Amino acid sequence: MSVLVMKFGGTSVATLDRIRRAAKRVGREVANGHRVIVIVSAMSGKTNELVGYVNETSPLYDAREYDAVVSSGENVTAGLMALTLQEMDIPARSWQGWQVPVRTTSAHGAARIEEIPDDNIRRKFDEGMKVAVVAGFQGVSPEGRITTLGRGGSDTTAVAFAAAFDAVRCDIYTDVDGVYTTDPRISEKARKLDRIAFEEMLELASLGAKVLQTRSVELAMRYKVKLRVLSSFGEQDDAAGTLVCDEEDIMESKPVSGVAFSRDEAQMTLISVADRPGIAAAIFGPLSDAGVNVDMIVQNISEEGRTDMTFSLPTDQVARAEKALLDARAAGGLDFRDLVSNMDVAKVSVVGIGMRSQSGVASRMFRVLSDEGINIKVITTSEIKISVLIDRKYMELAVQALHDAFELEKAS
Amino acid sequence: MSVLVMKFGGTSVATLDRIRRAAKRVGREVANGHRVIVIVSAMSGKTNELVGYVNETSPLYDAREYDAVVSSGENVTAGLMALTLQEMDIPARSWQGWQVPVRTTSAHGAARIEEIPDDNIRRKFDEGMKVAVVAGFQGVSPEGRITTLGRGGSDTTAVAFAAAFDAVRCDIYTDVDGVYTTDPRISEKARKLDRIAFEEMLELASLGAKVLQTRSVELAMRYKVKLRVLSSFGEQDDAAGTLVCDEEDIMESKPVSGVAFSRDEAQMTLISVADRPGIAAAIFGPLSDAGVNVDMIVQNISEEGRTDMTFSLPTDQVARAEKALLDARAAGGLDFRDLVSNMDVAKVSVVGIGMRSQSGVASRMFRVLSDEGINIKVITTSEIKISVLIDRKYMELAVQALHDAFELEKAS
Repeated sequence: MSVLVMKFGGTSVATLDRIRRAAKRVGREVANGHRVIVIVSAMSGKTNELVGYVNETSPLYDAREYDAVVSSGENVTAGLMALTLQEMDIPARSWQGWQVPVRTTSAHGAARIEEIPDDNIRRKFDEGMKVAVVAGFQGVSPEGRITTLGRGGSDTTAVAFAAAFDAVRCDIYTDVDGVYTTDPRISEKARKLDRIAFEEMLELASLGAKVLQTRSVELAMRYKVKLRVLSSFGEQDDAAGTLVCDEEDIMESKPVSGVAFSRDEAQMTLISVADRPGIAAAIFGPLSDAGVNVDMIVQNISEEGRTDMTFSLPTDQVARAEKALLDARAAGGLDFRDLVSNMDVAKVSVVGIGMRSQSGVASRMFRVLSDEGINIKVITTSEIKISVLIDRKYMELAVQALHDAFELEKAS
Repeated sequence: MSVLVMKFGGTSVATLDRIRRAAKRVGREVANGHRVIVIVSAMSGKTNELVGYVNETSPLYDAREYDAVVSSGENVTAGLMALTLQEMDIPARSWQGWQVPVRTTSAHGAARIEEIPDDNIRRKFDEGMKVAVVAGFQGVSPEGRITTLGRGGSDTTAVAFAAAFDAVRCDIYTDVDGVYTTDPRISEKARKLDRIAFEEMLELASLGAKVLQTRSVELAMRYKVKLRVLSSFGEQDDAAGTLVCDEEDIMESKPVSGVAFSRDEAQMTLISVADRPGIAAAIFGPLSDAGVNVDMIVQNISEEGRTDMTFSLPTDQVARAEKALLDARAAGGLDFRDLVSNMDVAKVSVVGIGMRSQSGVASRMFRVLSDEGINIKVITTSEIKISVLIDRKYMELAVQALHDAFELEKAS
């Protein structure tokens, strides 16, 4: 018995008519001989409505009650999807998280799935059920309370079910038809990728390409779940969408697979910091305590015992970071002359597993930007990624120039 | 530890603001030293929206999926009520039916509560929780699926919790401020009753006074739950509303407590039926098989071996009843000359436990109607009720005349 997992996001189940269209896709996979586990999100807009109720009722809400309220949207879609499939004469039933049960940690609002026993659903499959419809995004804590997995959590639900049922594939139906070499709104030359490696997808997801929840990609990588991203709209064939898979299943030989970017980065510089051993800890300790997520860090060459320290962070954490650093200076643990924040920056990254075997990617990237007259403020690299911080006004130019330079519009 | 049950209907929790007003009432009872179990309905309109989704998806729906979908509205209100109470610094948490668990039969859409274990909630009370907020209208079947109790089921949830926790009282907050001697829209002399006996309330509920679900009154009577109906709107004191209680707790000595009426009754007459033993079975057997709920029955005096048979039934079952009787005649099991239906009738009833001890109520009722020139078509009586079928155009006149004659505007 081969199990296929299909996940439909909020826009794919936004109306009864769209639920019917999604159910038809499920019906085709049943006709292909699969048992299908369908993971559904809430109808788009419903979760936001519920979150709005909670925030208006209690700005500092009890996360357990938040979860009890916001999880209800998925329950509605799951029941409606099961009814729609039944109308098509496909044996189906719905499952809420606690019914499976999807066992999670007690970290309400951001719970992690710990275990999905497969016996209840398998027994129903054995009795003739063809489709199990499961409410995504939710689970149940060891205390028997409802938990949610955080925004985008239905992707993670889908991958976790695919792992638990050893599924042949996990298809994520969404409002885009796959993963692109870059955002088509920035570069019209953007090309849909047929395949992408888990590690590349992870870098892209965390860099701001909002196709899949990062955690779902981590989970798919760990459990070797074949993950496919494809559109709920328009006709599909088996080769549709983008397959996120193991590195060895990828044939492309290019050093770079995609160009990512993020506008939500700010740059902060501490000027004339007294340079001494332990200075990095004196700066980043207080920031960490204040919950600031520092990304890139550059320390300038030290002169006469003083140095400048530059780092990047999410724009919405700048005020918190400034307070933490000024407090640290006032407390005497940190000595700097000035603190300068710059919100008009952007991060641009090239990502590709090919970098492991092909050298010269960094120097080529820097030359391309230099030729366009774009100044690089900060650089970070990983094994399969090079990121630069630049003035935000040059972001689109940089993305297009890099897309051209690495010939991403051409399939290899 | 004295437990009080408070139930808030859909209009009482229709907005976040109304939920706050309801929470304030709960807070006052907590301040009075009670532990409170709050039963909530869905925000008004929500359940209808969900029922609409189901009906549009699947006209002949799977009742198990119907229940999974329509129960979600109560979950939202329960979480929001708990959050609102927490904002007022009152320790509270929400419970969905399966979490208590509210164990029911598997009769989806019209399940009966079988058991409510009190240990989970009592343990939380012992740990300092002051209010348990429970989603009304729902439970869980022996198979672990979500059930609902039928429309108005939250009243039944409330009474069942009051019985399970041996509550001091069960307060039903609704959009009317109690039970009246008759509908104030029909008679401006209608007076709110301070107390009414369970059996009177049962007769009134089934006669069309839509204040409480009939099943909740039956349950309260069986378990001796003191039931109070009162309004969520406007200020309340302890004597507010109407207390539904045991007969021995009632001081009123009037023979009649209230005048009820129903417009949804039709009269049907079979003319010239061959009168023979078993004729009633030949008529009412096919009607029962067709799901027709016959209420009042009159058989005229038989002459020359033939008789007329008149009965009343809900207006929306007339077509079905006609078909059943004509089919029975065609099949040869029943012989009558003509079938006449009359939709322009109404049922008017006087109800009162005082009838048991005071005679002459029926003759007084008939004289009052006669004095107003109102012809009585059918009569039925029980120990505490007399009902008559009359022309619908006289319904308001009959109600007002009876209300005057039995002096219901005066407290006894």
